[in-house]
Amino acid sequence: MSSALDDFHAVIPAGGAGTRLWPLSRAARPKFLLDLDGSGRTLIQQTWDRLHALVPAERIHVVTGAPHAEAIREQLPDLVDVLVEPSPRNSMPAIGWAAAVVRSRDPEAVIGSFAADHVISDETAFGAAIAEAVATARTGLVTTIGVTPTEPSTAFGYIRAGAALDVPGASTALAMEAFVEKPDAQTAEEYLASGAYTWNAGMFVVKADVLLQHLERLQPTLHAGLARIATDPATLDATWPTLTSIAIDHAVAEPVSLEGGMAVVPATFGWDDVGDFAALAELRGSDPGTLFVDASGLAVSTDDTLVAVLGLDDVVVVRTPDAVLVTTRALSQRVGELPKTLRSLGRTDLV
Amino acid sequence: MSSALDDFHAVIPAGGAGTRLWPLSRAARPKFLLDLDGSGRTLIQQTWDRLHALVPAERIHVVTGAPHAEAIREQLPDLVDVLVEPSPRNSMPAIGWAAAVVRSRDPEAVIGSFAADHVISDETAFGAAIAEAVATARTGLVTTIGVTPTEPSTAFGYIRAGAALDVPGASTALAMEAFVEKPDAQTAEEYLASGAYTWNAGMFVVKADVLLQHLERLQPTLHAGLARIATDPATLDATWPTLTSIAIDHAVAEPVSLEGGMAVVPATFGWDDVGDFAALAELRGSDPGTLFVDASGLAVSTDDTLVAVLGLDDVVVVRTPDAVLVTTRALSQRVGELPKTLRSLGRTDLV
Repeated sequence: MSSALDDFHAVIPAGGAGTRLWPLSRAARPKFLLDLDGSGRTLIQQTWDRLHALVPAERIHVVTGAPHAEAIREQLPDLVDVLVEPSPRNSMPAIGWAAAVVRSRDPEAVIGSFAADHVISDETAFGAAIAEAVATARTGLVTTIGVTPTEPSTAFGYIRAGAALDVPGASTALAMEAFVEKPDAQTAEEYLASGAYTWNAGMFVVKADVLLQHLERLQPTLHAGLARIATDPATLDATWPTLTSIAIDHAVAEPVSLEGGMAVVPATFGWDDVGDFAALAELRGSDPGTLFVDASGLAVSTDDTLVAVLGLDDVVVVRTPDAVLVTTRALSQRVGELPKTLRSLGRTDLV
Repeated sequence: MSSALDDFHAVIPAGGAGTRLWPLSRAARPKFLLDLDGSGRTLIQQTWDRLHALVPAERIHVVTGAPHAEAIREQLPDLVDVLVEPSPRNSMPAIGWAAAVVRSRDPEAVIGSFAADHVISDETAFGAAIAEAVATARTGLVTTIGVTPTEPSTAFGYIRAGAALDVPGASTALAMEAFVEKPDAQTAEEYLASGAYTWNAGMFVVKADVLLQHLERLQPTLHAGLARIATDPATLDATWPTLTSIAIDHAVAEPVSLEGGMAVVPATFGWDDVGDFAALAELRGSDPGTLFVDASGLAVSTDDTLVAVLGLDDVVVVRTPDAVLVTTRALSQRVGELPKTLRSLGRTDLV
């Protein structure tokens, strides 16, 4: 398999605080720097581990903001290439910059972009899916990985697959018919029932040159800025703030899907974006010391102190050295309101 | 007033952990040692303050267990007399011991027993009620203070008052008709509606000699043990474990009330036993830093960290350096189950 990935570079855009996991996640200690599942490895370390099983360290590129570069270097001692963004400009500039850097080294290279803060359960199946996605990407298609839905989630975008492609080394790859936004609950039920939809897990595998050509056509100003930075890194600080802040989904994936330029490889591995405490509760149990009396839910204490809950079901209790959060699993999606409110109250020490 | 109380001694039995206030209250740091209302004074300090306004330090006697004697001496630097119980034997041995000590100094003395962990809001009215109770006790009656109920509580015993007594210096004193146990909710409603009932706040004012005579008649073995200890303090350790463990309510107040030997002085002061977090919520608000979003209740953090609650009403959240409690105001009475469970799990460090 490793020889089949000789032209493959992995890109890890490491951004996003994960405010719905406050007070575990903080602006200065975002989700990807945390060991959320109690595995002993942080989410970015787990991401590194599963990509490093496929490619050497020299071909793994992390793109992150200046505030987190040092912590990432500490957590990933074998990391060679860190692209440090002067300011957050969303995922397209980050991935586009990495694509430009990679193409300048190898014009035929295929890149794969993988979030720094997701959890994947079967690394062998992950490697197999990536190998198929790389083979598919070599044909010129922007290829994504479609995760089989386990519930009618309204938190993810969906992908509708079409006919099988006939790509050597990618027996399961399918044409992509549509790339759809997060649905409402009823639509999500219909998607799940139809069997034709998979979750968009935000993984994109594409020839660097193909991605940059799409970008040149669809976002010419952004492309020009990235080309300038790749050619002359000294222009980074001056150019970066002028780049359009846009997600790769909107900049490339959606328009290219309408042109028939995308493919999907169905995942057979388990995937979780650990987007909120409801998701975290699926991933891990409460801390061993937790005392639930006529109660249930998720209790996490980062300082090994006891959490006791009496008479409340489906609660979420999180204790950190400086804060306690109490809410319900059903309200997990709203937790991001709290650091937002704290910021508005001037409590930036707590966000 | 002070000359009217020349024969009066105050007794403060300081026992009881207050397990329903866990994790604020602990076996090693019981409720009476805590500043629960944020006044800057602990409950036993407040008790001391209001009694010391009536009598000199030499006539205030604290009865407590060996584990708490030192902490009490630290909190009450002017305290002269501490009677240290070798083991907990409930309130009758504690108060009876103090009565025996006081009578040996002054055969005509009146004692008043006051819990170490209650909150009283109008100290002038308290002093006036005590003066009336002392005047009533001098006539030979066991006198209690009846607190006007503010709700149909099922957490307190009730007192049914009878006809006015004609005691000089005690214009509001009434005969006591009955001393009744904690009622069920419907009975409590009826008591409240009738207007004839007051709460038994556990305050007893009685001539030391009268109390000991009742005890000699009703609990002769207990009386003999206390007499031996008062006569020869060296016998304390040998005698104490043989004493009947019984509350003053059952040992004396209930039987004497049936004989017509009790009186009641209605209180015009505010009284709170701070028995659970529902009571504490009435007494104080949440900590200033608390963030309630679509939520309400009581949040207390003893280490000045933030408590944030999202989407839960009437919750109770308490954070101490080693534990977090989450429950509802309605379940406050059940909080004592938690330290009990922790003890059964061997977590004596947390109880």
